[in-house]
Amino acid sequence: MTHSPTSRTQVKRVPQRASYDPHQVYNILDEGLVCHLGFVVEGQPFVIPTAYGRLEDKLYIHGSPASRMLRTLDQGVEVCLTVTLLDGLVLARSAFHHSMNYRSVVLFGTATRVDDPTEKLTALKAFTDHVVPDRWGEVRPPNPQELAGTLVLALAIAEASAKVRTGPPIDAPEDYALPVWAGEIPLRLTAAAPVADDRCLPQLEVPSYAVAYKRVGQCHV
Amino acid sequence: MTHSPTSRTQVKRVPQRASYDPHQVYNILDEGLVCHLGFVVEGQPFVIPTAYGRLEDKLYIHGSPASRMLRTLDQGVEVCLTVTLLDGLVLARSAFHHSMNYRSVVLFGTATRVDDPTEKLTALKAFTDHVVPDRWGEVRPPNPQELAGTLVLALAIAEASAKVRTGPPIDAPEDYALPVWAGEIPLRLTAAAPVADDRCLPQLEVPSYAVAYKRVGQCHV
Repeated sequence: MTHSPTSRTQVKRVPQRASYDPHQVYNILDEGLVCHLGFVVEGQPFVIPTAYGRLEDKLYIHGSPASRMLRTLDQGVEVCLTVTLLDGLVLARSAFHHSMNYRSVVLFGTATRVDDPTEKLTALKAFTDHVVPDRWGEVRPPNPQELAGTLVLALAIAEASAKVRTGPPIDAPEDYALPVWAGEIPLRLTAAAPVADDRCLPQLEVPSYAVAYKRVGQCHV
Repeated sequence: MTHSPTSRTQVKRVPQRASYDPHQVYNILDEGLVCHLGFVVEGQPFVIPTAYGRLEDKLYIHGSPASRMLRTLDQGVEVCLTVTLLDGLVLARSAFHHSMNYRSVVLFGTATRVDDPTEKLTALKAFTDHVVPDRWGEVRPPNPQELAGTLVLALAIAEASAKVRTGPPIDAPEDYALPVWAGEIPLRLTAAAPVADDRCLPQLEVPSYAVAYKRVGQCHV
């Protein structure tokens, strides 16, 4: 991806929070689980949450060939894909200066269909690895019918920007004298104890990746 | 809001997961902290994360009058606003049937600017109450300059749909015999211990709402 902003990725508001560093972008994409996909149908914007996976500079989404979203994207329309990680609530001394700490990525482009069976399978593995590393090797892989019944689209991570806010509230100078507690409430996406399916075979151990599931950036490129 | 879907809100994929019940929609909106706002500029979709507040059947967003997003929405263009709560990872016995448990709302409409100072202040209070209940009464309220320097837009919660997946994986019948652990890893947005701003006055106690911050739906209408 390019290190300089384009007219679309140039962050307009509070530009000092922007980054066009691919590693920053990849880290945020790798930690997120759900993206919000924006596309236009007859002038009407749609924003649909969906899961995704990343392999180097490509981001993959997938689903049923009957999906309106995927069918629309498959036509090569412009897409805006956004991933947001909420890191904390920022409590200032004044209502006006309350804020949130976050890391987000906004990616523009057009999707291309993945038809090659090998790339398709690799994309689906990346998809599973993204959500639960180590899972792919333990489950039944897609059979030919399932593979044929899955539409996989790729989006190049070429035109993207990250935006990050960290740190304490920034109050108006005169407000620091107010007797109002100020600071951050950190927020994390955390996993609770896994819930086994009632129909699990007896004596199956809960896999360690499920017991100790943690969401952290896994950027490897 | 209407209890029946419109051509825009009609859920296309897996329609049995859809709901057009205002209470369901309100509960999801009240638990969420960030929405993803979709709008179109010269055919190009943009999806921008932003905070919001709700008062009865209106959803408020706000920000700087210099914001491209708010300036665009202020022109009365079509908006799609989406809120997604991720509740869990659903681990099936086959790669194909992996899924996620979630609750999401997709809302369509056009924004209207809130100019009346009383409604504007009420909206900003709703905004703060939405994120940290009880905070508003303890902080310095907006002064006239801050109020004038904040653009507040309202979006009627009239045309919306919710979509919800809960429960265990649904595997292909023959896969239930596989010796693969299956179930759900529940996910929650949780708060860590509050971090006081270094410039907090001494002897200020951490407010109880910050110590025990919990994100739960607070639907009161």
